Order: sequence, then structure tokens, then C-alpha cells
Amino acid sequence: MGYTVAVVGATGAVGTRMIQQLEQSTLPIDKVRLLSSSRSAGKVLQYKGQDITVELTTKESFEGVDIALFSAGGSVSAKFAPYAVKAGAVVVDNTSYFRQNPDVPLIVPEVNAQAMDGHNGIIACPNCSTIQMMVALEPIRQKWGLERVIVSTYQAVSGAGQSAINETVREIKEVVNDGVDPKNLHADILPSGGDKKHYPIAFNALAQIDVFTDNDYTYEEMKMTNETKKIMEDDSIAVSATCIRIPVLFSHSESVYIETKEVAPIEEVKDAIAAFPGAVLEDDTEHQVYPQAVNAVGKRETFVGRIRKDLDVEKGIHMWVVSDNLLKGAAWNSVQIAESLHDRGLVGPAKELKFELN
Amino acid sequence: MGYTVAVVGATGAVGTRMIQQLEQSTLPIDKVRLLSSSRSAGKVLQYKGQDITVELTTKESFEGVDIALFSAGGSVSAKFAPYAVKAGAVVVDNTSYFRQNPDVPLIVPEVNAQAMDGHNGIIACPNCSTIQMMVALEPIRQKWGLERVIVSTYQAVSGAGQSAINETVREIKEVVNDGVDPKNLHADILPSGGDKKHYPIAFNALAQIDVFTDNDYTYEEMKMTNETKKIMEDDSIAVSATCIRIPVLFSHSESVYIETKEVAPIEEVKDAIAAFPGAVLEDDTEHQVYPQAVNAVGKRETFVGRIRKDLDVEKGIHMWVVSDNLLKGAAWNSVQIAESLHDRGLVGPAKELKFELN
Repeated sequence: MGYTVAVVGATGAVGTRMIQQLEQSTLPIDKVRLLSSSRSAGKVLQYKGQDITVELTTKESFEGVDIALFSAGGSVSAKFAPYAVKAGAVVVDNTSYFRQNPDVPLIVPEVNAQAMDGHNGIIACPNCSTIQMMVALEPIRQKWGLERVIVSTYQAVSGAGQSAINETVREIKEVVNDGVDPKNLHADILPSGGDKKHYPIAFNALAQIDVFTDNDYTYEEMKMTNETKKIMEDDSIAVSATCIRIPVLFSHSESVYIETKEVAPIEEVKDAIAAFPGAVLEDDTEHQVYPQAVNAVGKRETFVGRIRKDLDVEKGIHMWVVSDNLLKGAAWNSVQIAESLHDRGLVGPAKELKFELN
Repeated sequence: MGYTVAVVGATGAVGTRMIQQLEQSTLPIDKVRLLSSSRSAGKVLQYKGQDITVELTTKESFEGVDIALFSAGGSVSAKFAPYAVKAGAVVVDNTSYFRQNPDVPLIVPEVNAQAMDGHNGIIACPNCSTIQMMVALEPIRQKWGLERVIVSTYQAVSGAGQSAINETVREIKEVVNDGVDPKNLHADILPSGGDKKHYPIAFNALAQIDVFTDNDYTYEEMKMTNETKKIMEDDSIAVSATCIRIPVLFSHSESVYIETKEVAPIEEVKDAIAAFPGAVLEDDTEHQVYPQAVNAVGKRETFVGRIRKDLDVEKGIHMWVVSDNLLKGAAWNSVQIAESLHDRGLVGPAKELKFELN
């Protein structure tokens, strides 16, 4: 009757939260299968109080699976997602590997669930920093249009995984307990596990997330540009991002400046955001109410505040956008995509296999 | 032969650094006098290895003083700076009290030292977040003009004083050592000692510095707008700021977007910044070189990197600007103003007393 759902990368910071989100999901689930690399296979995790042993991911892992949630890195998705599709599953992929593939819809359910209709078996979940910005901007775009976006992010270390969380806590303890000068801390992971040099994040702000591209923007910054255009189906929206890692464990914050196509009265903008699914308006300067990272942790919503006119540009608006990067930014958006697939009757084998089997 | 220099607010986070900067200064100094409120009077501090007892600040404290550096809050400057001027001293005021007074020059020495000529006895030191932005932008403004600025800040807690530093360290210890959930931490000071509610900064980002104004911007944000116009002597420059406190103790970072009047080739922008006094270019994405808060601590310079074209706007440029908020942002800029006054032959009694004695 219900689905068999597989979680690939089940033991990671996102994977464990995918399991929690499935426990709270409206999806009819018969069985959950937990998959990982050989490093974590054999571990035992719980789903609704039941022990489940984590299995090694193989090309044969997906027989009988209806929905496969992937969050184990781009190379794992590249290798195994096509086999999951071949086995008849719908893949919801939380890595960047398929996001710009024209055969793969890139989905924030509140914004563009309709783009999943006629899918080919793989649905991509956008980058965490993009998702929460989309929830804040879509209600504005719908009513007044969107000309350009300039965003500066304040991103939590958990976006780089559990090892980055551990590194950050270790560094901070060395400073506050042992008196180590932050610039002398040893780092192995941040700003990007895939890059050559590593820098401390404790009491620091790192102007690099992911590696640099040829145009001197990072991949993280270019994700915000390219994913916004794809999700909003409008290549004319100008987006330039500066992505910064700060010593926060959970929840990304974003300082977002936009220019609308039509003049948008601020009180109407606030009303539109408050009425949009998944968005919560927290904006009352008189009572010092604005979104805060620590308050967003564990919540599915995106919190928006500090909404105000630019001081000079009539169509310019500034705002502060905060959300749990591991939930709406990853685990919840992935499970929400699965719920949306179910609601739209889109769970089932792809008609044709568009993705190369390697 | 040399000057008598007074430091008002000598025991604070900025005051103690003013003493250090005076020790390293090129100013001819005969005597240093340390002043404070009754709470700190009687404490003993050192200047060049000599013990100096901190005295209570009174209206009579400034007899024989040539240069008085104030950093004890706006109300202290309002009350005592006019008496220092009356006694024949030149005041360098690090508070916001006199900054927008048309009789008071607002000075970043690399940018507008000439505005001190013909001063009336009080020189104002701009807000920390403004100063470092001015050092980064002035070389660009000089060559290509400056149309607009959009800035998002990543500000250290030390900008709110020693008590905010203590609060931050205490909060962080409660989280990493005692397992307290950051949202349940108790706070007494941040985001602004002068406001009603207080929020934790540990593992958080606070979208409020100073209190809110009627237009939903904070005073900190409006300082960046108004001070930029005054320092650059151009009310037509459009500046909108979003000022954010992050859990960093020392050094402010800023994500700055500008539009120039003329198209500015990026390599020439980098050359102009590298050649500007007080600015250091740190920009080499291939080798992951960009300014970092932890590396700027204890340095007088402003570090600029991540300089790149906007992806869509031809005259748009993004950059990342980092400096020690207690040095260039306060203590060093104040002592540097004093050095500049000396170099320009401007130390001496004001011709006429323009400030009310209360």
C-alpha cells in the first residue's frame, strides 16, 4: 500500500534529519531503507522507534524502492541515482550534481512544484542558501516582478557536514578554554573540504564556500545565481552573491537586496510574505522582532524580517532571511518534494532512462 | 616641548588600545593623563612602562592638555569635550555625539585630513564600520566616482565594549562546555545596551546594532549612510547598509557592493587599492587569499579582497573589506587624527568656542 523509501547518506548531518522528517511526514510509508558508504554501513539507526541497520549502497540497492532521497555527495548521486531510476524509483537528489541538467527539475515546492510534472525520474533539491531565498522572494516576484538580487550570506558550518561542525566546536573550545589565538588554530576542513588550504572558522568569517570558479566567484555563489534563474524560470533575473561562512552551527542568515519591476509598497510586501506558504514574517522593529538563526533551528519555515525600502532606489528593498539550512535547506525540502510528488501522483517508474549508467 | 595627551575612557576596550597606539605613535608626547568615570578612577594603567593612576574626569581635568582623546560614550563627550576645548585642547572624539555637527570635521586621515584645516577644537572619529569602508572606497571614488553603495556588515562584538566581549565568551562557554541550547542563553547587553530586549549572540547573527530609527534602519546603519556622505563631501552618494553582529570578538568584515560613475576595470581597481595608504590588497582566489577577521586583529590597515565585477551591472563591483574595529575603527584612527593634526600644525587652542558649556 505504502512506499518503500531509501535514504542514501543516512548517517550524515542531512541524512539523519531526512529520517526525522520522514517520521513526521504525511507520506504513506511502508518501509524505510538506510544506505551509506562502506565507512558507515552496519551502523544501526532508528526510524519511528525501530532499529534499522545501515546497508552499503550498491547498484542493486534500489530494487523495490519507490522514492530514494540522496544526500551523500555529488559523486555518489552521479554513480547511483541512474540505477535507482532504472529500478523504478523516483530520486530526490540533494547534491549539486544534477541541478543544472535540463532533464532534471530543480524544485522548491512552494515555488515551482508544477515543474515536476512529466519528470524523468530525478528531481533536484537546490542549494540550501538558494532555497530559503526563493521562499522569501517568490511572493514578491509573483506580484511585482524581480529585476535583480544582491545577496550576502551568513552561513552555518553544518552546510559543510558533520565534520565541519566537529571542527568548529573543537576550535572554539581551544580558544575559550585553552586561550589559543584564533589565527593559530589548526583547520582541516573549512572553508571547503575539496580545496587545498584550510582556515579556522572560530571567531572568524570566511569569504569562501566551495571552491572558486574562473570568474572569481565561488561555486556556492554561482549556485545562487544559476539556481535562482532555473527555479524562477527567468534567465533575465540578475543575481550576484557573496557567500560567507560564520561561526554558527545551524541556520543560514541572508542579507538580501532586490529591485522589483514595479514599485512594491513595503506593507504589501510584508503581507505577501506573511501569506506565502512556508514563509513567516518576523518584522517589528519597535519591539526588536527580526529573524534569528538560533530561533530558526529545528523549524521548517523560512523567517523574513528587517523589510525596508532602499534609501535611494524606489524599487529597491532590503530584507533579512533566516532558515534552518539542514531542514528547509536540505532534509525538509527533499521530503517535501517527495510529499509533493505523491500529492501530484508522480511517484512511479520513469518512462525512459535519460541518465547514463556507469 | 612635547604634548600633554589625555585619554578619556582610558580603561575601556578602545581606551586601552588608544594608550597602546600612543606608545607607538610618532607624536612628540611629554605626558599622558588617563581619565575615566568614578567607577574606574584610581585604577593604575601603564604607559611605556610607567604606572599612571586613572583620574576622575571633571570640567577642570583639561588644564594643560594639548590633545584629548575621548572614547567614553556620547554623553561624556557632550558634557566634557567643550570644557577641554575651552582649556585649549584639541579634542578627538570617538563617539557619535558630534559627528553630524557642521562645526566638527569627521575624519579618516587617508581620505579627508584637509577637512581639519580651520577646525574649531573638536574633530570627530567616524563609526568603526564606516572608517574601514572609506579606506576601501576612496581610491575607487577618486578615479571612477561613486554612485551608490550597498553594504552588509559582519561586525565583532567588541564594538559594543568590553562587557559585550565578556557576555559573548560566557555564552559560548555555556554552549560548548555545558550543552546549553543557544536560544536559551541569558543576555544582558547585546544587541544594544541601550535597548529594551537582549538576545544571545553565541552561534547567532543579530540583525540589530544600536537602536532602530523611525525609518526601520538602525542608527548604526544610518551612521554608515550619513557619515559616508559627510566624509566624501558628496550628499549624492547613495548608501544603504544592513548591519549585523556575529559571534566574532575582534575585526569587522563587510560585504560591499558599489556602482561607480565610470566603468572601472577590475585590475585597475585592485592596483588603486594596493597603492592607497592604509589599504592592503589581499586578493588571489587561485591561492585562496582573501581578508580574514582573525588575521586583521592587531593591525592598523584595512584589508580588501574578493574584488570582482557584478555579473550583470557593468559599473557594479563587489568586495570584502576587513579591519580591526578597535584599531582603525577607533583607537588608531583617533591617534592617527592626532598625528595628522600635529603634521598640519593644527594642535592649539580654538579661536572661538563654538560648543555649549553645560
